[in-house]
Amino acid sequence: MRILGIDPGIAIVGYGVIDQRGNRLKPVDYGSIQTEAGLPTATRLKQIYDAATQLFSRFQPEVVAIEKLFFNRNVTTAFAVGQARGVVMLAAEETGAMITEYTPLQVKMAVVGYGQAQKRQIQEMVRMLLNLPEIPKPDDVADALGVAICQAHSTTFSKRIGQGREGL
Amino acid sequence: MRILGIDPGIAIVGYGVIDQRGNRLKPVDYGSIQTEAGLPTATRLKQIYDAATQLFSRFQPEVVAIEKLFFNRNVTTAFAVGQARGVVMLAAEETGAMITEYTPLQVKMAVVGYGQAQKRQIQEMVRMLLNLPEIPKPDDVADALGVAICQAHSTTFSKRIGQGREGL
Repeated sequence: MRILGIDPGIAIVGYGVIDQRGNRLKPVDYGSIQTEAGLPTATRLKQIYDAATQLFSRFQPEVVAIEKLFFNRNVTTAFAVGQARGVVMLAAEETGAMITEYTPLQVKMAVVGYGQAQKRQIQEMVRMLLNLPEIPKPDDVADALGVAICQAHSTTFSKRIGQGREGL
Repeated sequence: MRILGIDPGIAIVGYGVIDQRGNRLKPVDYGSIQTEAGLPTATRLKQIYDAATQLFSRFQPEVVAIEKLFFNRNVTTAFAVGQARGVVMLAAEETGAMITEYTPLQVKMAVVGYGQAQKRQIQEMVRMLLNLPEIPKPDDVADALGVAICQAHSTTFSKRIGQGREGL
């Protein structure tokens, strides 16, 4: 099963592609789509949409897992992130991939095992679980890999209990 | 000059098309794109994107004017509206139209002349300015026409002072 995790934003969209074979997770590729701050929002959204479409076409993920609302950001940020997330979701929908969403808390629980984990701990666990030489930069990339891992663990879990989970 | 105003949302996207000739405004068409609450977000975003693309292709607006963040809504709403707004903006960008954004306050100022105007007053002014038999329903449609009128007044204003304004 190939999973593509996404941490959306208007300036940086982190992505991480992993292959899941049973309990094993293999990193395939990771990186970011970045747009320039000075450009009009519509131009940046189009750049994100085009790059995401290329990404999905190149890696053909069966599941696209997207990070959900980060509640303690403010309204203006939520609005900007929402716009970027909208065009990424559209690109995913157009490829026919299954689309799932996870909150930062769900990602923490899946990656580190408890919800009070610090950002650095999550990043270090992402690095270890995927056997990477170092923590991917910027943070958005490590976050995207975390979302992909969260998806992988959900699938394992739902298979183990012999039933699908809501949102999968 | 043909202007298409948009009031974006995930459940209802209001739109209003007007033609501006000097000081005269002529309504061309108005209505809404609606999506069902039970559907997955990605499906709804794709429906909005496809319908918006059709709309822009049908009416060929020179300017697409989109309502900007409504600050007193909460973060979750801002996020959902942002997603819908993102795919509408993408569709507009892909048609090559000029894209402008106006806050509800700017719309109030342009339509009624003062920022404390009530929703009903704005709707009634929209109806009068466009010589419509009644106030368009739902509210999102009247709001979209308000945004289009705001754009028309901005253009007149910037022509009068002989220079472009930021965002136009």
